[in-house]
Amino acid sequence: MTDRNDRLDLLLAGGRVLTLDRAGTDLDPGRVGVRGGEIVVVEPDVGPRPTADRVIEARGHLVLPGLVNAHLHAPMTLFRGLADDLPLETWLTEHIFPAEAQWVDPDMVYWCTLLAAAEGLLSGTTCMGDSYFEEAAAVRAFQEAGLRAVCAQGVIDFPAPGVPDPAQNLAVAERFCRDTADQGGLVTPAIFCHSLSTCSAGTLQKARDLADRLGVGLMIHLAETKGEVERCRQEHGQGPVAYLDGLGFWRKNAVAVHGVWVDEADAALLARRGVGVVHCLESNLKLGSGLGPVTMLRAAGVRVGLGTDGPASNNDLDMFGEMRSAALNAKGAARDPTALPAGEVLQMATREGARVLGLGGLIGAVEIGRRADLIVVDLDRPHLTPLYHPVSHLVYAADRSDVRHVIIDGRVVVEDRDIKTFDVGRVMAEVRRLAARVKTG
Amino acid sequence: MTDRNDRLDLLLAGGRVLTLDRAGTDLDPGRVGVRGGEIVVVEPDVGPRPTADRVIEARGHLVLPGLVNAHLHAPMTLFRGLADDLPLETWLTEHIFPAEAQWVDPDMVYWCTLLAAAEGLLSGTTCMGDSYFEEAAAVRAFQEAGLRAVCAQGVIDFPAPGVPDPAQNLAVAERFCRDTADQGGLVTPAIFCHSLSTCSAGTLQKARDLADRLGVGLMIHLAETKGEVERCRQEHGQGPVAYLDGLGFWRKNAVAVHGVWVDEADAALLARRGVGVVHCLESNLKLGSGLGPVTMLRAAGVRVGLGTDGPASNNDLDMFGEMRSAALNAKGAARDPTALPAGEVLQMATREGARVLGLGGLIGAVEIGRRADLIVVDLDRPHLTPLYHPVSHLVYAADRSDVRHVIIDGRVVVEDRDIKTFDVGRVMAEVRRLAARVKTG
Repeated sequence: MTDRNDRLDLLLAGGRVLTLDRAGTDLDPGRVGVRGGEIVVVEPDVGPRPTADRVIEARGHLVLPGLVNAHLHAPMTLFRGLADDLPLETWLTEHIFPAEAQWVDPDMVYWCTLLAAAEGLLSGTTCMGDSYFEEAAAVRAFQEAGLRAVCAQGVIDFPAPGVPDPAQNLAVAERFCRDTADQGGLVTPAIFCHSLSTCSAGTLQKARDLADRLGVGLMIHLAETKGEVERCRQEHGQGPVAYLDGLGFWRKNAVAVHGVWVDEADAALLARRGVGVVHCLESNLKLGSGLGPVTMLRAAGVRVGLGTDGPASNNDLDMFGEMRSAALNAKGAARDPTALPAGEVLQMATREGARVLGLGGLIGAVEIGRRADLIVVDLDRPHLTPLYHPVSHLVYAADRSDVRHVIIDGRVVVEDRDIKTFDVGRVMAEVRRLAARVKTG
Repeated sequence: MTDRNDRLDLLLAGGRVLTLDRAGTDLDPGRVGVRGGEIVVVEPDVGPRPTADRVIEARGHLVLPGLVNAHLHAPMTLFRGLADDLPLETWLTEHIFPAEAQWVDPDMVYWCTLLAAAEGLLSGTTCMGDSYFEEAAAVRAFQEAGLRAVCAQGVIDFPAPGVPDPAQNLAVAERFCRDTADQGGLVTPAIFCHSLSTCSAGTLQKARDLADRLGVGLMIHLAETKGEVERCRQEHGQGPVAYLDGLGFWRKNAVAVHGVWVDEADAALLARRGVGVVHCLESNLKLGSGLGPVTMLRAAGVRVGLGTDGPASNNDLDMFGEMRSAALNAKGAARDPTALPAGEVLQMATREGARVLGLGGLIGAVEIGRRADLIVVDLDRPHLTPLYHPVSHLVYAADRSDVRHVIIDGRVVVEDRDIKTFDVGRVMAEVRRLAARVKTG
């Protein structure tokens, strides 16, 4: 145990600190001290400052917890903008599925995840909930990038990249989880059952058993489209939430992604089981799936995080955009300007997202004892002038390019918008090389 | 008349030129030559380049027409984020109206319009359709900023800033239009009848007569809320579109702002009268007013531009965000991913917006004979990598900070994200000074 008076590794001082703790503490100016990757000082920036190896002067800036992108498919940066504005079936079966079948391999996953990490870091995302195949290569990319992640290996009952024999899907997932847990570092392993249309009851139950045995999270795409819910009712006589409950799927650390077409009974059940939902609004809009009932879910006591979904359907990994879209659309849908206020959206993008991913005690707020995942946002911008309420600005006016520094686990990974952990130019060149192959088929 | 072989003032070369002309010409690489503020060369960038006083190398960039923000209230930057997430009536009557009554004067309008201009320029907006009071001070700001604008003096039947006696509202508007027209430069005058709830039939008719007499545009907030339409039906026995038609309001150069609650009969009438509509989606969502039926309006043959509305209800002036929101929400509302494709939204944000503002022949496309309002967008960004379709990236992945250079009327007003026409630091300081008074009441 160290004392707050011991020398710090890092001190952020002079900025306005939005802690996003339960009390909503706002220190202006405040300071945050970090030692061993952990937040050890959070206090008003008055009186003598603690000594530190490194000091970031944050005057004219906001200091807040890094954003948590609770659901994406990072390697799909390769398919960003490959096909848009098409009917869902055409888009999936003629563009995305064939491209995935042809181009997904560990090399692709590694480079394209690094690209996603670059985009995330430069937009203030300090933690990603990633789900894909060949996920071990994604783990390598996140560790190199210094970006915290929950990485979930995909499970489907069809041949998949790295899993040519579907009978091996859970064995591959188990090996992935054990290897990733052994590595330590910033990545937590998990299992991703793709959806009800790709996973049998048996697979879902085995995945649940495996997740329990390994103590890892279990994610699934849930009720993304109305058609999916209707098919489930036809096949199983009940909606997807009840069906999965019958399989024992909704136990601790389950994450339901999308949840566009859940009703109040579903929400009550998810709340009772402690299942988190990830709201991926921009992707749901772009694919014409609908608006998730985020206000209703929250009112039912379900914890809801925000996710961008993969860049083939968004087409970026911008959590500032996702916060704004969520706040605006909740109001538009309810025809009520008081729906989903800025402060709630910011909580969803930070501490709630962390809880959904099972990292609730670890990150998501600027509090003593949590890991130091912090972003520093420049307020000295025309579009952020004047300043009455910083939370309003973060949600309704700021954008990702206002993020100036990013600290993850106490390490400065972005300084003055420059990524310190890897060569982003090299990564972009490698992804362009891969994309050139996609273009020529 | 000069020849294309005469020396150019400015040449943009090496970039990919999205002309947004009727044929959708895409030159990769292309070059654009400017002389006397006019586009005189648009061609593939092959063979010897024309000589020019100044050359902007645009390799790795897109060159396209500047964005047209067809409706805003620029001076309201002062009230950006002053109050959010409140019921509409509370927000208006307890926050915005009192603040406007207390703080709007020529000094406020001048500085806060310069701030809006800074934000617009740095986000690729080259033309604004502004509507407010004390609009002469806004004209001064736009001229100094070198930002093209249609400036409309507000008309209401109540005392207003600069118009203490409502009986003078049209006299003030007439003087404003004459003075502004005499100035020349980048600003075109217009008249802005605030809404049906603030303008009597007599005022609306007199404003229409004045607009005809002066040959200027005539704008009005139309059918923004459902309540407004219901009130109009109660008072006048018909909806606002039909009511205004009965007053002869819908003649040339009329602009209907919002149009959230118009039906198919309204749309057919607006199309027949050649009235343009400005879709201000983010503001409509944030205030809980609803989603404008943009797809229906366009299908009816109505030309539709995009606007941010004022920064008290958006809270920024970001046309990239507005394009994305429009494209995503049209799909979400229709549950159809083919609704409002990227190319259509980009047209709305450029040439259609220009037409709505009555500047259709002048700007909105990279075509010989049009004024040179151009933006240069940097593609060398992680979030724009890889590149399959540039129009998709502009709408679904790019953001305002990707705009690198801005040219208006042939003049380079933003170079490497630096505003060349005025001191933005000074402007921000002046607006902060004004905001400090607002805070202390």
